[in-house]
Amino acid sequence: MFKKILIANRGEIALRVIRTCKEMGIKTVAVYSTADRESLHVKFADEAVCIGPAASNESYLKMSNVIAAAEITNADAIHPGYGFLSENAKFSKICEEHDIKFIGASAEMISKMGDKATAKETMKAAGVPCVPGSDGIIKDFEECQKLAIETGYPVMLKATAGGGGKGMRAVWKEEDLLKAWEGARQESAAAFGNDGMYMEKLIEEPRHIEIQIVGDSTGKACHLSERDCSVQRRHQKLTEETPSPFMTDELRERMGDAAVKAAEFIKYEGAGTVEFLVDKHRNFYFMEMNTRIQVEHPITEQVVDYDLIREQILVAAGVPVSGKNYYPQLHSIECRINAEDPFNDFRPSPGRITNLHAPGGHGVRIDTHVYSGYMIPPNYDSMIAKLITTAQTREEAINKMKRALDEFVIEGINTTIPFHRQLMDHPDYIAGDYTTKFMEDFEMKPLED
Amino acid sequence: MFKKILIANRGEIALRVIRTCKEMGIKTVAVYSTADRESLHVKFADEAVCIGPAASNESYLKMSNVIAAAEITNADAIHPGYGFLSENAKFSKICEEHDIKFIGASAEMISKMGDKATAKETMKAAGVPCVPGSDGIIKDFEECQKLAIETGYPVMLKATAGGGGKGMRAVWKEEDLLKAWEGARQESAAAFGNDGMYMEKLIEEPRHIEIQIVGDSTGKACHLSERDCSVQRRHQKLTEETPSPFMTDELRERMGDAAVKAAEFIKYEGAGTVEFLVDKHRNFYFMEMNTRIQVEHPITEQVVDYDLIREQILVAAGVPVSGKNYYPQLHSIECRINAEDPFNDFRPSPGRITNLHAPGGHGVRIDTHVYSGYMIPPNYDSMIAKLITTAQTREEAINKMKRALDEFVIEGINTTIPFHRQLMDHPDYIAGDYTTKFMEDFEMKPLED
Repeated sequence: MFKKILIANRGEIALRVIRTCKEMGIKTVAVYSTADRESLHVKFADEAVCIGPAASNESYLKMSNVIAAAEITNADAIHPGYGFLSENAKFSKICEEHDIKFIGASAEMISKMGDKATAKETMKAAGVPCVPGSDGIIKDFEECQKLAIETGYPVMLKATAGGGGKGMRAVWKEEDLLKAWEGARQESAAAFGNDGMYMEKLIEEPRHIEIQIVGDSTGKACHLSERDCSVQRRHQKLTEETPSPFMTDELRERMGDAAVKAAEFIKYEGAGTVEFLVDKHRNFYFMEMNTRIQVEHPITEQVVDYDLIREQILVAAGVPVSGKNYYPQLHSIECRINAEDPFNDFRPSPGRITNLHAPGGHGVRIDTHVYSGYMIPPNYDSMIAKLITTAQTREEAINKMKRALDEFVIEGINTTIPFHRQLMDHPDYIAGDYTTKFMEDFEMKPLED
Repeated sequence: MFKKILIANRGEIALRVIRTCKEMGIKTVAVYSTADRESLHVKFADEAVCIGPAASNESYLKMSNVIAAAEITNADAIHPGYGFLSENAKFSKICEEHDIKFIGASAEMISKMGDKATAKETMKAAGVPCVPGSDGIIKDFEECQKLAIETGYPVMLKATAGGGGKGMRAVWKEEDLLKAWEGARQESAAAFGNDGMYMEKLIEEPRHIEIQIVGDSTGKACHLSERDCSVQRRHQKLTEETPSPFMTDELRERMGDAAVKAAEFIKYEGAGTVEFLVDKHRNFYFMEMNTRIQVEHPITEQVVDYDLIREQILVAAGVPVSGKNYYPQLHSIECRINAEDPFNDFRPSPGRITNLHAPGGHGVRIDTHVYSGYMIPPNYDSMIAKLITTAQTREEAINKMKRALDEFVIEGINTTIPFHRQLMDHPDYIAGDYTTKFMEDFEMKPLED
């Protein structure tokens, strides 16, 4: 087993890793930028090394500094957390070259899954369903017609140079295809000087549902069921839950099998997540694979009684996985508490926390690196805490979340607590009837006085 | 279901009840003494009524004030928590007379179980093992000899007027009986002017192990397995765990059966605890029954995924219990954090908390009514927080407790955190090898600097 692990990250995830290391009797090294001197991850680690100024690319992203900190402190492994260097193939390789175990995916695996086109090709080869459509640019309308039939209506025409919804058309039946094709090409040519088009199946009422997997060095993998992360704002997840209210036992088996197949096909080692889009007919399509721990991992831990960070460390040390899959025994919800103003377009709200009181009691878990008096630096991600509630049923988990949000006191800055509180009262959320489009129509109600 | 519940208590247990009420959509009324204005149970309740000055007998124990608060606020039920009026037969009866549901045992049940002699008689009749011995005072040495053989050596001779260990003798074999009989009688006569003696079986290496039960209005009961509360100081529990490290599946079945038998024999309604002494041969003996929720109830909740307060409320509202017993799926430990100085004979240490930061993360639960800036009044119990860790194994739960205690910051007062931290490192505790005598030999190590 490792004797000392350096955590190449900051904030709550650094603290999360330190906690499990302590519980396993492994020494820890924190690294920090000058902006993070007062963070709890620095206080709670056995050693701490300053690796540069506030700017990430001169500290948390600066590989030479991180490696130097590991060498100085004689750490035999590095846990990268999420973000920063966690999916950086070069960093994984450099660790290997320095004989420091990278607790994450190999350089090869990161490269393979990091490039979307390569990842999709690999998954197709593994037999994992991907969003059907054209292979690259469509030659002409004749090919477009043929492809649309093959793909199955509805389809999306998308400008290869596109962005911001320009040069994009949803087509629901064949008689509308020609008009859409011509309109999209003209629009794309006008906007981007390029009328190249490609086609994808239109995912109706898409849900973002991901499967947690763990693979080991023998090539064996298991899954830990799903997390529903459909409540997103501009592709940023806001709240997650497991089980998904949209899930059926049969769909879970199919998605779990696909995720395990994907992991075993590429001989994936470590904890990873296979993200899928699921349409209203419960077809699912591979979106991407994250070769690291995810922000929302605690809800899985809560419902299957499993410490995912511990498992990452064990697998990295060569311990094989149990081989069995894990199924949710409870219901768990995570709300990401961000230092943002939900009444003001979620504008970042860094600054000093003048008072903090966290909720507690039965079924409440908090992961946070902040405290009363903590100064939130403006340099990093705005997430300051994760509030997780767990109960026997979804209804109880929601009710628990409401009372926990009501108890949560954070003064001195704005937070997304009021957003989550309103979300928990939203009829569509309560009904479990939400897709990735949910936030497009969501509006904060003004606070009553 | 009840519309509004008044919580006739203070501190963490009042907050604990409020939390579950909120989750169930039930309105809450807090009562408070003038010393408790700033407590969280007052802040988090829907309504709060001041019921008197700091002295308990003029506020929390003053039945007329509590009943008046319930009538003023139109509460349809009262939850008494633990301590105070929770096992007061008269109060239970007064509630009934005022058409307010008392969420606890009936007056009759409280009387029956509150008197030790009656409780023991009842349990004997129910077939629950009680500590064998004499029925009252022993007539003469001849009877003493006969009784000792019936009871089985070793036995304890105890002065009926006794106290402080005076007039007490442990006897391990028959040839020592006469000397002990005479010595104890002389000592007792000298100390108390009364040489009456009674006999009890000597419980070798006694452990305090209790069984949580829940009974309903149909007379049906189920058990939720055990809690080991052997780590006690002057009969005050300090830390509890479940499962007991001394437990076997076979013993759990026997003790669980006995507890359910006891509850069903008396048609017990509500949550209750049957406390047993268990000797080194795994014989167990009824000690007493607590007809209320207990301080240490969270560890049971953690290992069986059950909300005991919710169950109390449901049962009080007439909902029957499921009828199945619950067995621990995980291991859970509770440390009672008291405002006491463990380096100074656990002397109370009330005062203002100048800084508080609670631990969090995977497997950590905190129940507390205090916060940064809170003034601990000197008038009540010194417990200010319960720290509970839960994991797959006992070893992991201990390791988690260590890191959680290390993270816990409470400044401005002394607390028992250093005691618990040293306990978690004690070889006998780690080995699970402790009895109710454990604390007699425990000494705090001075802090290193």
